[in-house]
Amino acid sequence: MTGTMISIEEAQERLLGFVDVLGKEEVPILDSPGQVLAEDVCSEIDVPPLDNSAMDGYAVRSGDTEGASQGSPRLLRVIDTVAAGYVSGQKVTPGTAIRIMTGAPIPGGADTVVQFENTDEVQRREPTAGKPITEIGILHETEVGLNVRRAGEDIRKGTLVLAEGTVIRPAEVGVLASLGKTHVAVISRPVVAILATGDELVEIGQPLPAGKIYNSNTYSVAALVRRYGGIPRILGIALDTEDSLVEALRQGLDADMLITCGGVSMGDYDVVKDVLAREGEINFWTVRMKPGKPLAFGTIKGRDRTGASKGIPLLGLPGNPVSSMVTFEIFARPAIFKMMGRKSWDKPAVEAVLEDTVTNRDGRRVFARAIVEKRDGQYFARITGSQGSGVLTSMSLANGLVIVPEDTAEKQAGDIVRVMMLDWNEEVV
Amino acid sequence: MTGTMISIEEAQERLLGFVDVLGKEEVPILDSPGQVLAEDVCSEIDVPPLDNSAMDGYAVRSGDTEGASQGSPRLLRVIDTVAAGYVSGQKVTPGTAIRIMTGAPIPGGADTVVQFENTDEVQRREPTAGKPITEIGILHETEVGLNVRRAGEDIRKGTLVLAEGTVIRPAEVGVLASLGKTHVAVISRPVVAILATGDELVEIGQPLPAGKIYNSNTYSVAALVRRYGGIPRILGIALDTEDSLVEALRQGLDADMLITCGGVSMGDYDVVKDVLAREGEINFWTVRMKPGKPLAFGTIKGRDRTGASKGIPLLGLPGNPVSSMVTFEIFARPAIFKMMGRKSWDKPAVEAVLEDTVTNRDGRRVFARAIVEKRDGQYFARITGSQGSGVLTSMSLANGLVIVPEDTAEKQAGDIVRVMMLDWNEEVV
Repeated sequence: MTGTMISIEEAQERLLGFVDVLGKEEVPILDSPGQVLAEDVCSEIDVPPLDNSAMDGYAVRSGDTEGASQGSPRLLRVIDTVAAGYVSGQKVTPGTAIRIMTGAPIPGGADTVVQFENTDEVQRREPTAGKPITEIGILHETEVGLNVRRAGEDIRKGTLVLAEGTVIRPAEVGVLASLGKTHVAVISRPVVAILATGDELVEIGQPLPAGKIYNSNTYSVAALVRRYGGIPRILGIALDTEDSLVEALRQGLDADMLITCGGVSMGDYDVVKDVLAREGEINFWTVRMKPGKPLAFGTIKGRDRTGASKGIPLLGLPGNPVSSMVTFEIFARPAIFKMMGRKSWDKPAVEAVLEDTVTNRDGRRVFARAIVEKRDGQYFARITGSQGSGVLTSMSLANGLVIVPEDTAEKQAGDIVRVMMLDWNEEVV
Repeated sequence: MTGTMISIEEAQERLLGFVDVLGKEEVPILDSPGQVLAEDVCSEIDVPPLDNSAMDGYAVRSGDTEGASQGSPRLLRVIDTVAAGYVSGQKVTPGTAIRIMTGAPIPGGADTVVQFENTDEVQRREPTAGKPITEIGILHETEVGLNVRRAGEDIRKGTLVLAEGTVIRPAEVGVLASLGKTHVAVISRPVVAILATGDELVEIGQPLPAGKIYNSNTYSVAALVRRYGGIPRILGIALDTEDSLVEALRQGLDADMLITCGGVSMGDYDVVKDVLAREGEINFWTVRMKPGKPLAFGTIKGRDRTGASKGIPLLGLPGNPVSSMVTFEIFARPAIFKMMGRKSWDKPAVEAVLEDTVTNRDGRRVFARAIVEKRDGQYFARITGSQGSGVLTSMSLANGLVIVPEDTAEKQAGDIVRVMMLDWNEEVV
């Protein structure tokens, strides 16, 4: 397939064909958000475990409240007080009541709870200050079951609570805790090894000799890996020789995926594809998109987590800083999400009114960096100045990418365009 | 103010009045996403540092290409090859060319780059296999500056690159790396100490005695703290006594904020507000919202990061699992974002067609858990079954909260409602 220009969708499909859902691991529930449940979670308990009170008040027999009113209180003898977390040893019999706090189990014999506001509790509290209340006046009739939360109302013992495939968020963490679970089985996070290539690159923090530039791709790509739930492993910088590249890649052959930045265009020093051909299976493409035309993909001989021999997917991103970020979103992100067991990986997109002109000279799908704003319920997109693919600051200004389809030569100011959102800030919505 | 019911906006304003933007810290650039720049970042270098080639080709003097065409190539002597990261020691003089790779500095004397495709490079490469090309035919006229990326095109030395207050994302990480920076000054992440209160609570992983329930709030709240960029510190479970609470809170008095879950309603065992009154300044409110009416807020005597005495903001969330999550979003989230230096903290919201009925019995603002879907460009919201505030699984099913305003008694199926989005999944947009 070397050399043939293919569509984005075809490239995604081929790439994902080489990428598998990872195995499962047990993690502490607090570390699990963003990961995908690897098993059905059923409850071994009722939640709540017992019928309990939804209010602070008096647990009574509803029959004892018949005819009660402000003018004609029904007086009941108070035989106990029960707080959340305790079980009363007493039973409510006709003519008696148990003072009960929110969350406390409903005592035997009671079938309803009269909240404080519907009793003369407040008047009685003052005079007895400190001493327990021994008698209470009920001021309203109440029906059976009022203010009673039923055992298993939230979760019934034995039922499926969270299904395999659920993406864990804070609410799911709370549900797992409410079942008493400290750990949960989830699909592992992929380890993504990142290697920058190029004799021109200098590591950050070092002095910059003439003709050299700082290696930025490793860091923007590592931040993206982490953002989407993966674990970045930085392999540093390889020189533009096959030996240097092979040597550096060796440190990443037990990763779940390898990403290289640079070394995939047509120059003499573009060695990623040569190494792929030598050390694995190459699938070098040019993709019908801009930025990001040259893309290398293949598998390289490595080891899985058990140490067994395995082809590790290697994605060779272009070295241009903007191209590497855009191709990451289009190709690496779906791969990471698939490995993590997620079922969908489209970025959010909106329809917006374009405020500039974007041209498409050679029939590729153009992704133009844009600032999207919502004004009066309508999205507007304006282009962030220079679209040179070396201009990383334009990526920093942007929160979206205006899409110009392959068959469209130009989108003009006023046209409605589709915008892939890079960041879904509160300000946008 | 104890006892008076106030609006959500007033409660937010009062709370945020007690919360300050934190100090700054230096962090490795890869750890900075989500944090806010604490200083202007100016560049000490041009990016790129030198004029360089945007293509693989030949660096030439444009005058030497005049009249060049397929039928009448202009022959130039090739005097050197230069790759990215290297500076040629040669100068392009009339009649000469230097072979140049993408990213390599433009050699002295040259003013343009002719890409390989516009030369007879390919024909010459085969026969000379391995041997350097000594002569090249230029097949097209080229203009001055073509295929040349100018020094400082992305970032000019001395200019402001990222302004104080910028929220760092992967693109900003890349920009910082391109300047050679390993660390960056950002506003610190707040340490949020979390304490669950209640005699009924049992720690996860322990056996569950009769009448007890597992502590889930600590974990859903800790997951939320982390989600919004804070650092949760778990203080465990306090019993419903002032002594137990004070003892437990002592472990959190050097945190940036304290959150308690439970102990804020009207029952005898609701001690958070008593402790606040004793150990600090209390500001106990009931807020015109449902779920989440009872909310305690105040400051408690503690220490700042330097050890100096300081009032630590304490937010007492209701103990009900759903109420604690909803009030967290409305109150704790803005507080965390303000401490982190962020300027905005509204959750994304959409207008949706309601598919069920939501009633509002007592003039509070109702937040009803809902599943929001987009169908044919329109959002629809259906309610997730039981709205009992103990029913945490309904929070797990939901991705949004349908808002019924204080002055509206009911929203019916077919009405347009505003929905605060809890999770902005790709599936929704």
